[in-house]
Amino acid sequence: MASYLITGTLRGLGLTLFKQLVSRPSSEVSIIFATARSESKALTELAERNPGRIFIVQLEAKSESSIKDAVKVVEEKLGGKGLDVLINNAAISYHTPAGIATMDLMKNARDDLDEHLVVNVIGVHMVTRAFLPLLQRGNSKKIVNITSTLGSITRAHFFKLVDTPGYKISKSALNSLTMQYSLAYEEERFTIFCISPGWLRTDLGGQHADLDVEVGAKATLEKIVGAGKEQNGRFLNIYVEGYPLYSGEDCAW
Amino acid sequence: MASYLITGTLRGLGLTLFKQLVSRPSSEVSIIFATARSESKALTELAERNPGRIFIVQLEAKSESSIKDAVKVVEEKLGGKGLDVLINNAAISYHTPAGIATMDLMKNARDDLDEHLVVNVIGVHMVTRAFLPLLQRGNSKKIVNITSTLGSITRAHFFKLVDTPGYKISKSALNSLTMQYSLAYEEERFTIFCISPGWLRTDLGGQHADLDVEVGAKATLEKIVGAGKEQNGRFLNIYVEGYPLYSGEDCAW
Repeated sequence: MASYLITGTLRGLGLTLFKQLVSRPSSEVSIIFATARSESKALTELAERNPGRIFIVQLEAKSESSIKDAVKVVEEKLGGKGLDVLINNAAISYHTPAGIATMDLMKNARDDLDEHLVVNVIGVHMVTRAFLPLLQRGNSKKIVNITSTLGSITRAHFFKLVDTPGYKISKSALNSLTMQYSLAYEEERFTIFCISPGWLRTDLGGQHADLDVEVGAKATLEKIVGAGKEQNGRFLNIYVEGYPLYSGEDCAW
Repeated sequence: MASYLITGTLRGLGLTLFKQLVSRPSSEVSIIFATARSESKALTELAERNPGRIFIVQLEAKSESSIKDAVKVVEEKLGGKGLDVLINNAAISYHTPAGIATMDLMKNARDDLDEHLVVNVIGVHMVTRAFLPLLQRGNSKKIVNITSTLGSITRAHFFKLVDTPGYKISKSALNSLTMQYSLAYEEERFTIFCISPGWLRTDLGGQHADLDVEVGAKATLEKIVGAGKEQNGRFLNIYVEGYPLYSGEDCAW
Protein backbone atom coordinates (compact mmCIF):
# COMPACT_ATOMS: atom_id res chain seq x y z
CA MET A 1 0.00 0.00 0.00
CA ALA A 2 1.75 3.12 -1.23
CA SER A 3 0.91 6.77 -1.77
CA TYR A 4 1.90 8.36 -5.08
CA LEU A 5 2.41 11.87 -6.34
CA ILE A 6 2.76 12.46 -10.06
CA THR A 7 3.41 15.82 -11.75
CA GLY A 8 2.24 17.03 -15.14
CA THR A 9 -1.05 15.14 -15.30
CA LEU A 10 -2.99 17.53 -17.54
CA ARG A 11 -2.54 15.30 -20.57
CA GLY A 12 -0.32 12.80 -22.35
CA LEU A 13 1.77 10.32 -20.40
CA GLY A 14 1.12 12.02 -17.06
CA LEU A 15 -2.66 11.78 -17.40
CA THR A 16 -2.45 8.17 -18.56
CA LEU A 17 -0.07 7.11 -15.79
CA PHE A 18 -2.41 8.79 -13.33
CA LYS A 19 -5.48 6.94 -14.67
CA GLN A 20 -3.62 3.63 -14.58
CA LEU A 21 -2.60 4.30 -10.98
CA VAL A 22 -6.25 4.99 -10.14
CA SER A 23 -7.30 1.69 -11.69
CA ARG A 24 -4.91 -0.27 -9.48
CA PRO A 25 -6.41 -1.72 -6.27
CA SER A 26 -6.41 0.46 -3.15
CA SER A 27 -4.49 -2.28 -1.39
CA GLU A 28 -1.59 -1.46 -3.71
CA VAL A 29 -2.05 2.26 -4.47
CA SER A 30 -3.61 3.96 -1.48
CA ILE A 31 -3.63 7.70 -2.19
CA ILE A 32 -2.77 9.47 -5.43
CA PHE A 33 -1.85 13.12 -5.75
CA ALA A 34 -2.05 14.37 -9.33
CA THR A 35 -0.45 17.74 -9.86
CA ALA A 36 -1.12 20.02 -12.79
CA ARG A 37 -0.26 23.62 -13.50
CA SER A 38 -3.89 24.52 -14.24
CA GLU A 39 -7.38 23.19 -13.59
CA SER A 40 -8.82 20.36 -15.68
CA LYS A 41 -12.35 19.03 -15.80
CA ALA A 42 -11.15 15.49 -16.49
CA LEU A 43 -8.94 15.51 -13.39
CA THR A 44 -11.62 17.07 -11.19
CA GLU A 45 -14.17 14.48 -12.25
CA LEU A 46 -11.78 11.62 -11.52
CA ALA A 47 -11.16 13.06 -8.07
CA GLU A 48 -14.87 13.47 -7.38
CA ARG A 49 -15.48 9.83 -8.23
CA ASN A 50 -12.72 8.79 -5.79
CA PRO A 51 -13.14 10.96 -2.69
CA GLY A 52 -10.39 10.57 -0.12
CA ARG A 53 -8.20 8.60 -2.52
CA ILE A 54 -7.43 11.05 -5.31
CA PHE A 55 -6.39 14.65 -4.85
CA ILE A 56 -5.72 17.18 -7.59
CA VAL A 57 -3.08 19.68 -6.54
CA GLN A 58 -2.09 22.85 -8.36
CA LEU A 59 1.66 22.85 -9.03
CA GLU A 60 3.73 24.83 -11.52
CA ALA A 61 7.15 23.14 -11.67
CA LYS A 62 8.87 26.40 -12.59
CA SER A 63 7.63 28.20 -9.48
CA GLU A 64 9.16 27.53 -6.10
CA SER A 65 6.26 29.20 -4.26
CA SER A 66 3.73 27.08 -6.16
CA ILE A 67 5.71 23.96 -5.21
CA LYS A 68 5.82 24.98 -1.55
CA ASP A 69 2.06 25.51 -1.53
CA ALA A 70 1.58 22.08 -3.07
CA VAL A 71 3.75 20.45 -0.38
CA LYS A 72 1.56 22.02 2.30
CA VAL A 73 -1.61 20.62 0.70
CA VAL A 74 -0.13 17.15 0.30
CA GLU A 75 1.24 17.11 3.84
CA GLU A 76 -2.14 18.00 5.25
CA LYS A 77 -3.96 15.33 3.21
CA LEU A 78 -1.44 12.69 4.30
CA GLY A 79 -2.29 13.50 7.92
CA GLY A 80 1.11 12.77 9.41
CA LYS A 81 2.03 9.92 7.09
CA GLY A 82 4.84 10.14 4.56
CA LEU A 83 4.70 10.13 0.78
CA ASP A 84 5.91 6.88 -0.76
CA VAL A 85 6.50 7.49 -4.46
CA LEU A 86 7.21 10.72 -6.35
CA ILE A 87 6.97 10.60 -10.16
CA ASN A 88 8.49 13.66 -11.81
CA ASN A 89 6.73 13.58 -15.15
CA ALA A 90 6.13 17.26 -16.00
CA ALA A 91 8.28 18.31 -18.96
CA ILE A 92 8.31 20.36 -22.11
CA SER A 93 9.69 19.60 -25.57
CA TYR A 94 9.93 22.01 -28.45
CA HIS A 95 11.30 21.50 -31.92
CA THR A 96 14.18 23.46 -33.39
CA PRO A 97 13.79 22.76 -37.11
CA ALA A 98 16.32 25.45 -38.08
CA GLY A 99 19.08 23.75 -36.10
CA ILE A 100 20.79 23.86 -32.73
CA ALA A 101 22.39 27.27 -33.24
CA THR A 102 18.94 28.82 -33.46
CA MET A 103 18.04 27.76 -29.93
CA ASP A 104 17.35 31.11 -28.40
CA LEU A 105 17.22 32.57 -24.95
CA MET A 106 14.12 34.65 -25.37
CA LYS A 107 11.65 33.62 -22.72
CA ASN A 108 8.61 31.96 -24.30
CA ALA A 109 10.46 31.19 -27.51
CA ARG A 110 9.44 27.70 -28.49
CA ASP A 111 12.98 26.50 -29.13
CA ASP A 112 14.52 27.80 -25.97
CA LEU A 113 17.41 25.87 -24.38
CA ASP A 114 17.01 27.87 -21.22
CA GLU A 115 13.32 27.03 -20.92
CA HIS A 116 14.01 23.31 -21.39
CA LEU A 117 16.60 23.39 -18.60
CA VAL A 118 14.34 25.41 -16.29
CA VAL A 119 11.32 23.11 -16.59
CA ASN A 120 12.91 19.70 -17.22
CA VAL A 121 15.90 19.95 -14.87
CA ILE A 122 15.55 22.77 -12.36
CA GLY A 123 11.82 22.06 -12.04
CA VAL A 124 12.51 18.43 -11.13
CA HIS A 125 15.22 19.53 -8.70
CA MET A 126 12.87 21.98 -6.98
CA VAL A 127 9.99 19.50 -6.74
CA THR A 128 12.24 16.70 -5.48
CA ARG A 129 13.89 18.90 -2.89
CA ALA A 130 10.58 20.23 -1.63
CA PHE A 131 8.98 16.79 -1.23
CA LEU A 132 12.07 15.14 0.30
CA PRO A 133 10.95 15.57 3.93
CA LEU A 134 7.63 13.85 3.15
CA LEU A 135 9.41 11.11 1.19
CA GLN A 136 11.83 10.54 4.08
CA ARG A 137 8.79 9.76 6.24
CA GLY A 138 7.42 7.38 3.59
CA ASN A 139 8.01 3.64 3.35
CA SER A 140 8.98 3.20 -0.31
CA LYS A 141 11.27 6.24 -0.60
CA LYS A 142 11.02 6.05 -4.37
CA ILE A 143 11.70 8.94 -6.77
CA VAL A 144 11.10 8.35 -10.47
CA ASN A 145 12.22 10.86 -13.08
CA ILE A 146 10.61 10.44 -16.47
CA THR A 147 13.40 10.88 -18.99
CA SER A 148 13.93 9.90 -22.61
CA THR A 149 16.37 7.82 -24.63
CA LEU A 150 16.84 11.11 -26.52
CA GLY A 151 18.83 12.18 -23.45
CA SER A 152 21.33 9.36 -23.94
CA ILE A 153 24.54 10.99 -25.19
CA THR A 154 25.87 7.55 -26.11
CA ARG A 155 22.95 6.98 -28.50
CA ALA A 156 22.79 10.52 -29.89
CA HIS A 157 23.89 9.45 -33.39
CA PHE A 158 20.89 7.15 -33.60
CA PHE A 159 18.51 10.04 -32.89
CA LYS A 160 20.36 12.62 -34.98
CA LEU A 161 17.34 13.49 -37.12
CA VAL A 162 15.05 14.23 -34.17
CA ASP A 163 15.15 18.04 -34.12
CA THR A 164 14.80 18.66 -30.38
CA PRO A 165 18.34 19.50 -29.21
CA GLY A 166 17.15 21.56 -26.23
CA TYR A 167 14.99 18.67 -25.03
CA LYS A 168 17.81 16.17 -25.53
CA ILE A 169 20.31 18.29 -23.59
CA SER A 170 17.80 18.85 -20.79
CA LYS A 171 17.18 15.11 -20.48
CA SER A 172 20.93 14.39 -20.32
CA ALA A 173 21.11 16.94 -17.50
CA LEU A 174 18.07 15.35 -15.82
CA ASN A 175 19.81 11.96 -16.00
CA SER A 176 22.85 13.48 -14.29
CA LEU A 177 20.64 15.12 -11.65
CA THR A 178 18.99 11.74 -11.03
CA MET A 179 22.38 10.10 -10.58
CA GLN A 180 23.47 12.78 -8.10
CA TYR A 181 20.29 12.39 -6.05
CA SER A 182 20.60 8.59 -6.13
CA LEU A 183 24.14 8.79 -4.73
CA ALA A 184 23.21 11.39 -2.13
CA TYR A 185 20.30 9.40 -0.69
CA GLU A 186 21.31 5.77 -1.16
CA GLU A 187 22.36 5.50 2.45
CA GLU A 188 18.86 6.57 3.52
CA ARG A 189 17.61 3.59 1.47
CA PHE A 190 16.02 5.70 -1.25
CA THR A 191 15.41 4.28 -4.71
CA ILE A 192 15.94 7.05 -7.25
CA PHE A 193 16.10 6.34 -10.96
CA CYS A 194 15.10 7.65 -14.35
CA ILE A 195 13.06 5.78 -16.91
CA SER A 196 12.34 6.31 -20.57
CA PRO A 197 8.65 5.65 -21.23
CA GLY A 198 9.20 5.07 -24.94
CA TRP A 199 8.25 7.27 -27.86
CA LEU A 200 4.54 7.70 -27.33
CA ARG A 201 1.66 9.07 -29.37
CA THR A 202 0.91 12.19 -27.29
CA ASP A 203 1.00 15.93 -27.92
CA LEU A 204 4.67 15.84 -26.94
CA GLY A 205 5.59 12.75 -28.94
CA GLY A 206 3.48 13.47 -31.99
CA GLN A 207 1.34 11.06 -33.95
CA HIS A 208 4.19 9.24 -35.71
CA ALA A 209 5.49 7.85 -32.45
CA ASP A 210 6.09 4.14 -31.81
CA LEU A 211 3.51 3.29 -29.20
CA ASP A 212 0.07 4.19 -27.94
CA VAL A 213 0.40 6.16 -24.73
CA GLU A 214 -1.50 3.47 -22.81
CA VAL A 215 1.09 0.87 -23.82
CA GLY A 216 4.02 3.06 -22.79
CA ALA A 217 2.35 4.07 -19.53
CA LYS A 218 1.59 0.46 -18.62
CA ALA A 219 5.17 -0.64 -19.31
CA THR A 220 6.51 2.34 -17.36
CA LEU A 221 4.28 1.65 -14.39
CA GLU A 222 5.33 -2.00 -14.32
CA LYS A 223 8.95 -0.89 -13.98
CA ILE A 224 8.09 1.71 -11.35
CA VAL A 225 6.04 -0.65 -9.20
CA GLY A 226 8.63 -3.40 -9.50
CA ALA A 227 11.65 -1.24 -8.74
CA GLY A 228 13.62 -1.73 -5.55
CA LYS A 229 16.98 -0.69 -4.16
CA GLU A 230 18.84 -2.44 -6.97
CA GLN A 231 17.32 0.05 -9.44
CA ASN A 232 18.82 3.02 -7.60
CA GLY A 233 20.84 5.31 -9.89
CA ARG A 234 19.87 3.55 -13.11
CA PHE A 235 18.48 4.61 -16.50
CA LEU A 236 15.62 2.17 -17.01
CA ASN A 237 13.92 1.42 -20.28
CA ILE A 238 10.50 -0.12 -20.75
CA TYR A 239 9.84 -3.63 -21.99
CA VAL A 240 7.31 -4.01 -24.80
CA GLU A 241 7.18 -7.35 -26.58
CA GLY A 242 8.21 -7.21 -30.22
CA TYR A 243 10.03 -3.85 -30.00
CA PRO A 244 13.83 -4.16 -29.96
CA LEU A 245 14.08 -0.51 -28.84
CA TYR A 246 11.99 -1.35 -25.79
CA SER A 247 13.91 -4.40 -24.65
CA GLY A 248 13.68 -3.57 -20.95
CA GLU A 249 17.48 -3.32 -20.78
CA ASP A 250 18.96 -0.21 -19.16
CA CYS A 251 19.94 2.63 -21.50
CA ALA A 252 23.51 3.85 -21.82
CA TRP A 253 24.00 7.34 -20.38
CA MET B 1 48.79 28.42 -39.09
CA ALA B 2 45.62 28.83 -37.11
CA SER B 3 43.83 31.55 -35.20
CA TYR B 4 42.53 30.75 -31.73
CA LEU B 5 39.97 32.23 -29.41
CA ILE B 6 39.86 31.07 -25.80
CA THR B 7 37.37 32.20 -23.16
CA GLY B 8 37.89 32.59 -19.42
CA THR B 9 41.56 33.54 -19.46
CA LEU B 10 41.65 35.60 -16.28
CA ARG B 11 43.27 32.78 -14.32
CA GLY B 12 43.64 29.04 -13.88
CA LEU B 13 43.52 26.70 -16.84
CA GLY B 14 42.37 29.43 -19.25
CA LEU B 15 45.30 31.71 -18.48
CA THR B 16 47.75 28.82 -18.69
CA LEU B 17 46.36 27.51 -21.98
CA PHE B 18 46.55 31.04 -23.33
CA LYS B 19 50.22 31.46 -22.28
CA GLN B 20 51.10 28.10 -23.80
CA LEU B 21 49.38 29.09 -27.06
CA VAL B 22 51.42 32.31 -27.06
CA SER B 23 54.65 30.34 -26.65
CA ARG B 24 53.93 28.24 -29.73
CA PRO B 25 55.52 29.45 -32.99
CA SER B 26 53.59 31.94 -35.11
CA SER B 27 53.81 29.48 -37.97
CA GLU B 28 51.49 27.24 -35.96
CA VAL B 29 49.43 29.70 -33.87
CA SER B 30 48.95 32.91 -35.82
CA ILE B 31 46.54 35.08 -33.85
CA ILE B 32 45.19 34.51 -30.36
CA PHE B 33 42.12 36.14 -28.90
CA ALA B 34 41.92 35.83 -25.13
CA THR B 35 38.58 36.74 -23.68
CA ALA B 36 37.94 37.64 -20.08
CA ARG B 37 34.99 39.12 -18.26
CA SER B 38 37.11 41.90 -16.74
CA GLU B 39 40.44 43.64 -17.32
CA SER B 40 43.68 42.05 -16.18
CA LYS B 41 47.14 43.53 -16.02
CA ALA B 42 48.77 40.18 -16.80
CA LEU B 43 46.73 39.80 -19.98
CA THR B 44 47.26 43.39 -21.08
CA GLU B 45 51.04 43.08 -20.64
CA LEU B 46 51.14 39.87 -22.66
CA ALA B 47 49.21 41.59 -25.43
CA GLU B 48 51.49 44.61 -25.40
CA ARG B 49 54.52 42.38 -25.82
CA ASN B 50 52.90 40.68 -28.84
CA PRO B 51 51.28 43.47 -30.88
CA GLY B 52 49.18 42.25 -33.79
CA ARG B 53 49.28 38.65 -32.57
CA ILE B 54 47.48 38.74 -29.24
CA PHE B 55 44.23 40.53 -28.54
CA ILE B 56 42.43 40.74 -25.22
CA VAL B 57 38.68 40.94 -25.69
CA GLN B 58 36.09 41.68 -23.04
CA LEU B 59 33.48 38.90 -22.94
CA GLU B 60 31.00 37.90 -20.25
CA ALA B 61 29.71 34.43 -21.20
CA LYS B 62 26.39 35.07 -19.44
CA SER B 63 25.62 38.15 -21.51
CA GLU B 64 24.46 37.87 -25.10
CA SER B 65 25.17 41.55 -25.80
CA SER B 66 28.71 41.23 -24.43
CA ILE B 67 29.25 38.20 -26.68
CA LYS B 68 27.96 40.08 -29.72
CA ASP B 69 30.30 42.98 -29.01
CA ALA B 70 33.20 40.54 -28.73
CA VAL B 71 32.34 38.95 -32.09
CA LYS B 72 32.47 42.40 -33.71
CA VAL B 73 35.93 43.09 -32.27
CA VAL B 74 37.27 39.69 -33.34
CA GLU B 75 35.79 39.97 -36.82
CA GLU B 76 37.43 43.34 -37.32
CA LYS B 77 40.84 42.14 -36.11
CA LEU B 78 40.66 39.11 -38.40
CA GLY B 79 40.20 41.47 -41.35
CA GLY B 80 38.01 39.22 -43.46
CA LYS B 81 39.59 35.93 -42.45
CA GLY B 82 37.80 33.28 -40.43
CA LEU B 83 38.44 32.05 -36.92
CA ASP B 84 40.00 28.60 -36.81
CA VAL B 85 39.71 27.29 -33.27
CA LEU B 86 37.29 28.23 -30.48
CA ILE B 87 38.09 26.98 -26.99
CA ASN B 88 35.16 27.33 -24.58
CA ASN B 89 36.98 27.31 -21.28
CA ALA B 90 35.05 29.80 -19.10
CA ALA B 91 33.20 27.99 -16.31
CA ILE B 92 32.26 28.19 -12.66
CA SER B 93 32.28 25.55 -9.94
CA TYR B 94 30.89 25.93 -6.45
CA HIS B 95 30.74 23.45 -3.62
CA THR B 96 27.55 22.26 -1.98
CA PRO B 97 28.83 20.74 1.26
CA ALA B 98 25.33 20.43 2.74
CA GLY B 99 24.21 18.17 -0.11
CA ILE B 100 22.41 18.27 -3.43
CA ALA B 101 19.02 19.20 -1.99
CA THR B 102 20.48 22.47 -0.74
CA MET B 103 21.34 23.63 -4.26
CA ASP B 104 19.34 26.80 -4.41
CA LEU B 105 17.95 29.04 -7.08
CA MET B 106 18.85 32.32 -5.49
CA LYS B 107 20.94 34.27 -7.94
CA ASN B 108 24.47 34.70 -6.60
CA ALA B 109 24.10 31.82 -4.19
CA ARG B 110 27.35 29.93 -4.33
CA ASP B 111 25.71 26.53 -4.70
CA ASP B 112 23.26 27.42 -7.37
CA LEU B 113 22.28 24.79 -9.95
CA ASP B 114 20.75 27.47 -12.12
CA GLU B 115 23.94 29.52 -12.15
CA HIS B 116 26.03 26.49 -13.12
CA LEU B 117 23.71 25.77 -16.05
CA VAL B 118 23.65 29.40 -17.15
CA VAL B 119 27.42 29.85 -17.25
CA ASN B 120 28.67 26.35 -18.09
CA VAL B 121 26.01 25.32 -20.61
CA ILE B 122 23.98 28.25 -21.89
CA GLY B 123 27.10 30.44 -21.89
CA VAL B 124 28.94 27.94 -24.10
CA HIS B 125 25.89 27.68 -26.35
CA MET B 126 25.68 31.46 -26.77
CA VAL B 127 29.40 31.87 -27.44
CA THR B 128 29.50 29.01 -29.91
CA ARG B 129 26.43 30.19 -31.77
CA ALA B 130 27.74 33.75 -31.99
CA PHE B 131 31.16 32.75 -33.34
CA LEU B 132 29.83 30.13 -35.77
CA PRO B 133 29.81 32.42 -38.83
CA LEU B 134 33.48 33.29 -38.23
CA LEU B 135 34.34 29.62 -37.63
CA GLN B 136 32.56 28.63 -40.84
CA ARG B 137 34.96 30.94 -42.69
CA GLY B 138 37.96 29.42 -40.90
CA ASN B 139 40.09 26.51 -42.06
CA SER B 140 40.21 24.29 -38.98
CA LYS B 141 36.55 24.60 -37.96
CA LYS B 142 37.40 23.33 -34.51
CA ILE B 143 35.31 23.89 -31.37
CA VAL B 144 36.68 22.62 -28.07
CA ASN B 145 34.56 22.56 -24.94
CA ILE B 146 36.50 22.18 -21.71
CA THR B 147 34.54 19.69 -19.63
CA SER B 148 35.36 17.43 -16.69
CA THR B 149 35.27 13.74 -15.91
CA LEU B 150 32.99 14.88 -13.06
CA GLY B 151 30.39 15.30 -15.82
CA SER B 152 30.55 11.62 -16.70
CA ILE B 153 27.31 10.05 -15.45
CA THR B 154 28.81 6.61 -15.99
CA ARG B 155 31.64 7.39 -13.57
CA ALA B 156 29.55 9.29 -11.01
CA HIS B 157 30.00 6.63 -8.31
CA PHE B 158 33.76 7.09 -8.49
CA PHE B 159 33.42 10.81 -7.79
CA LYS B 160 30.64 10.50 -5.22
CA LEU B 161 32.55 12.33 -2.50
CA VAL B 162 33.27 15.41 -4.64
CA ASP B 163 30.63 17.82 -3.35
CA THR B 164 29.91 19.78 -6.54
CA PRO B 165 26.61 18.35 -7.83
CA GLY B 166 25.66 21.53 -9.70
CA TYR B 167 29.00 21.55 -11.51
CA LYS B 168 28.72 17.84 -12.34
CA ILE B 169 25.20 18.19 -13.74
CA SER B 170 26.23 21.24 -15.78
CA LYS B 171 29.17 19.35 -17.29
CA SER B 172 26.92 16.41 -18.24
CA ALA B 173 24.67 18.92 -19.97
CA LEU B 174 27.69 20.53 -21.65
CA ASN B 175 28.75 17.11 -22.93
CA SER B 176 25.29 16.63 -24.40
CA LEU B 177 25.39 20.11 -25.96
CA THR B 178 28.77 19.26 -27.48
CA MET B 179 27.37 16.06 -28.97
CA GLN B 180 24.41 17.94 -30.46
CA TYR B 181 26.67 20.54 -32.06
CA SER B 182 29.02 17.86 -33.37
CA LEU B 183 26.13 16.07 -35.09
CA ALA B 184 24.65 19.29 -36.45
CA TYR B 185 27.91 20.48 -38.06
CA GLU B 186 29.70 17.28 -39.04
CA GLU B 187 28.60 17.68 -42.64
CA GLU B 188 30.24 21.12 -42.75
CA ARG B 189 33.45 19.32 -41.71
CA PHE B 190 33.57 20.81 -38.22
CA THR B 191 35.48 19.08 -35.43
CA ILE B 192 33.58 19.62 -32.19
CA PHE B 193 34.49 17.76 -29.03
CA CYS B 194 34.83 18.09 -25.29
CA ILE B 195 37.93 17.35 -23.29
CA SER B 196 38.62 16.90 -19.61
CA PRO B 197 41.84 18.74 -18.71
CA GLY B 198 42.37 16.70 -15.54
CA TRP B 199 41.99 17.74 -11.94
CA LEU B 200 44.31 20.71 -11.75
CA ARG B 201 45.77 22.84 -8.98
CA THR B 202 43.87 26.08 -9.68
CA ASP B 203 41.37 28.24 -7.80
CA LEU B 204 38.64 26.04 -9.27
CA GLY B 205 40.35 22.70 -8.64
CA GLY B 206 41.85 23.53 -5.26
CA GLN B 207 45.31 22.74 -3.99
CA HIS B 208 44.75 19.01 -3.41
CA ALA B 209 44.27 18.36 -7.10
CA ASP B 210 46.25 15.78 -9.08
CA LEU B 211 48.31 17.89 -11.43
CA ASP B 212 50.00 21.26 -11.78
CA VAL B 213 47.96 23.43 -14.08
CA GLU B 214 50.87 23.64 -16.54
CA VAL B 215 50.92 19.86 -16.90
CA GLY B 216 47.16 19.65 -17.51
CA ALA B 217 47.21 22.58 -19.93
CA LYS B 218 50.08 21.08 -21.93
CA ALA B 219 48.35 17.70 -22.20
CA THR B 220 45.07 19.40 -23.14
CA LEU B 221 46.71 21.51 -25.81
CA GLU B 222 48.41 18.47 -27.32
CA LYS B 223 45.01 16.84 -27.75
CA ILE B 224 43.47 20.03 -29.16
CA VAL B 225 46.23 20.65 -31.69
CA GLY B 226 46.29 17.02 -32.75
CA ALA B 227 42.52 16.65 -33.12
CA GLY B 228 40.96 16.12 -36.54
CA LYS B 229 37.63 15.01 -37.95
CA GLU B 230 37.87 11.62 -36.21
CA GLN B 231 37.65 13.39 -32.84
CA ASN B 232 34.28 14.95 -33.69
CA GLY B 233 31.61 14.25 -31.07
CA ARG B 234 33.98 12.65 -28.57
CA PHE B 235 34.75 13.07 -24.86
CA LEU B 236 38.55 13.25 -24.84
CA ASN B 237 40.76 12.77 -21.83
CA ILE B 238 44.35 13.92 -21.45
CA TYR B 239 47.37 11.68 -21.44
CA VAL B 240 49.86 12.17 -18.61
CA GLU B 241 52.47 9.47 -18.12
CA GLY B 242 52.16 7.59 -14.84
CA TYR B 243 48.55 8.59 -14.12
CA PRO B 244 46.00 5.83 -14.81
CA LEU B 245 43.19 8.41 -14.60
CA TYR B 246 44.84 10.34 -17.43
CA SER B 247 45.33 7.47 -19.83
CA GLY B 248 44.40 9.46 -22.93
CA GLU B 249 41.46 7.11 -23.53
CA ASP B 250 38.04 8.70 -24.16
CA CYS B 251 35.77 9.06 -21.14
CA ALA B 252 32.41 7.32 -20.93
CA TRP B 253 29.49 9.75 -21.08
